[in-house]
Amino acid sequence: MTVSSLAPKTIPVIAPVAGVTLAAGAAGVRYRDRADVMLARIAPGSAIAGVFTRSATRSAPVLWCQQALAASGGSGPEGKPLVVVVNSGNANAFTGRAGEESVAALSKAAARALDTDEGAVYQASTGVIGERLPHARIEGVLDALAASLSPDAWQAAAAAIMTTDTFPKLASATATLAGKTVTVSGFAKGSGMIAPDMATMLGFVFTDAAIAPDALQTMLHEDTGRSFNAITVDSDTSTSDTVLLAATGQAGNAPVTEAADPAAAGFRDALHAVMRDLAHQIVRDGEGATKFIEIGVTGAESDRAAHAIALAIANSPLVKTAFAGEDPNWGRIVMAVGKAGEAADRDRLSIRFGDILVAEHGWVAQSYREEDGAAYMTGDELAVTVDVGVGGGRATVWTCDLTHRYIEINADYRS
Amino acid sequence: MTVSSLAPKTIPVIAPVAGVTLAAGAAGVRYRDRADVMLARIAPGSAIAGVFTRSATRSAPVLWCQQALAASGGSGPEGKPLVVVVNSGNANAFTGRAGEESVAALSKAAARALDTDEGAVYQASTGVIGERLPHARIEGVLDALAASLSPDAWQAAAAAIMTTDTFPKLASATATLAGKTVTVSGFAKGSGMIAPDMATMLGFVFTDAAIAPDALQTMLHEDTGRSFNAITVDSDTSTSDTVLLAATGQAGNAPVTEAADPAAAGFRDALHAVMRDLAHQIVRDGEGATKFIEIGVTGAESDRAAHAIALAIANSPLVKTAFAGEDPNWGRIVMAVGKAGEAADRDRLSIRFGDILVAEHGWVAQSYREEDGAAYMTGDELAVTVDVGVGGGRATVWTCDLTHRYIEINADYRS
Repeated sequence: MTVSSLAPKTIPVIAPVAGVTLAAGAAGVRYRDRADVMLARIAPGSAIAGVFTRSATRSAPVLWCQQALAASGGSGPEGKPLVVVVNSGNANAFTGRAGEESVAALSKAAARALDTDEGAVYQASTGVIGERLPHARIEGVLDALAASLSPDAWQAAAAAIMTTDTFPKLASATATLAGKTVTVSGFAKGSGMIAPDMATMLGFVFTDAAIAPDALQTMLHEDTGRSFNAITVDSDTSTSDTVLLAATGQAGNAPVTEAADPAAAGFRDALHAVMRDLAHQIVRDGEGATKFIEIGVTGAESDRAAHAIALAIANSPLVKTAFAGEDPNWGRIVMAVGKAGEAADRDRLSIRFGDILVAEHGWVAQSYREEDGAAYMTGDELAVTVDVGVGGGRATVWTCDLTHRYIEINADYRS
Repeated sequence: MTVSSLAPKTIPVIAPVAGVTLAAGAAGVRYRDRADVMLARIAPGSAIAGVFTRSATRSAPVLWCQQALAASGGSGPEGKPLVVVVNSGNANAFTGRAGEESVAALSKAAARALDTDEGAVYQASTGVIGERLPHARIEGVLDALAASLSPDAWQAAAAAIMTTDTFPKLASATATLAGKTVTVSGFAKGSGMIAPDMATMLGFVFTDAAIAPDALQTMLHEDTGRSFNAITVDSDTSTSDTVLLAATGQAGNAPVTEAADPAAAGFRDALHAVMRDLAHQIVRDGEGATKFIEIGVTGAESDRAAHAIALAIANSPLVKTAFAGEDPNWGRIVMAVGKAGEAADRDRLSIRFGDILVAEHGWVAQSYREEDGAAYMTGDELAVTVDVGVGGGRATVWTCDLTHRYIEINADYRS
């Protein structure tokens, strides 16, 4: 598969995270001749947090993780590691009772392989849905993976969870926390989709900072709203979306117990840098994407309203096809603002393409020249800013254009 | 332009409506060598009702109609006609103060041409947005149109309001009401969109039944939920969507004053037949459409929830591209149900393609054979039924597939 034209031009350096070791291997779940299982061991004494799809038809591993988090409160078992097992090729979604059996069997096997409790094993699966997960194949490689765990296997882990992604997605950042240097590193997959796969978005982020479970969960939840939940490729939500964040505490900082602790501002920034970077890479690998587009909305009644308006623009097929056609069609932006169901003052609305003022006072700007807009649209990184003129709410989301290649990927190939 | 492959194979017979006369002509608003203005005169003593886009950026004519309806309560002026003026080629949307001036000027001119009050002139405009409406060109043809009004000019009127529609859309039905035969006839346009036009949906329906304004408004509002508001081509909402319903009372029935009057059941059925037929024709002319698809949802918590789930399926790009590819990809249906934000029981969900049971009990049906689903998908009229297993709510919506042609129309041609 050709790598997306929007892929990062350099391979990022990923710093190891003290207490985290990784391994990847080939279990033959569906694909041949490639790694399709990722195992992570997170040292005893760690905390874990998670955010998940809100789909009413979520997969067996999502339900399992939600139960495990609720039961443990995000703490690892006393003196034992946390484990994350992820496979690609099969989503174990819409598989009824059999799906639950597969999850239970995998937890048992992974707990045995890494000497921990079954409830400390977190899982994610991505790939075809409606087919039984061949969990025995995964179980068959767990001992070998456990024996090969390494603090440096980030690239291999990121590659093993890919489905139709055209490049592995990794990010890393450091910060100072209470006098200690702390590291945040992670990887993600999405949002390439090919029949019958779905837009599963998975993210796994690790830090050596000491953060109490409740604070970790709050930080993850809040940041997701500005990162993984602020991107859209085609408005479709998968049954399997999962982001996990684990904190080993091995950096030795005094534990952070409040998410809003001012002393943790640098850490929160590093976390956000990694989360946003991974989210952006997912958009950059959107199916058929040729443009990376930032949609900023200001002047809304609330931040929530601004987010809704921004998503209405980002998800509009008419807007997305206009970007694909390099058409500075601001009328479609007006339409999308109007349909969002949030307050907007038509006569105070302004629209900018980059720094170009396109519309204001309910009409095209007097200074606007169509050829300027058309020239701007030829870039592959675009920014649209809309002020809706009713309040102080603001939000930013990221998306890509809608091209023939999207139709090819999703319609032309039979499942 | 090639006529949609899903267009009706026959030209419908449209019955005249006593009290309604129509004319169409060429004002050169934007297009050359075609009619682009439609004028309707509705006899004194008539009632009128309207439903409109909920867009926050709705057009000047929409705002005008809403004001006129509110001011008159839906009654025509004493002893004077109601008038409807519609142009294609320019939507008079996002045109600021100039848009309001155009609407006022047109109302004045039409009222003078047909000897009525300005507040009795209803307007709709469809076409390019953000450009000033050349209203003087329309005013210039009004006298000639008034002189040529005819009870039979339905085809011409329907053709004059087309933008990128590939065929005119008309429907007609009769019913018995309190011993009298009453007629319902109408026409519509949409949802062909071509840069920089938008998915404007316009519908104009007329009857000779005697229906009081309040009852007429209630009937129109309720029926719209099952007709024009139950269709979607690409989830985008225009600034200009307008449906008007006028009742002349010239059939001579005892006036209906309650929308739910049992004696008016036949009339409501005729109204629905016309409204649904016009709505279906709009979907059949969806940009690039090759499949006409009915999505039925049962077993939801409420009818409203069922409607939301049905629209989530109908608007999903992954579902729509699967239909385009004739791919019986039921996993995407599961995904769309899950993302709708409404209650669904994953383990009681069932999915049918036509009469073929595809999934039940949270998994693919034991009787289902992929080749049956694939054969079904080759048809050009498809029905998907989903039972979500939690209640008695039900709804039906109609949509079309998402094809390369949609991208071509909306991305490949520059505005």
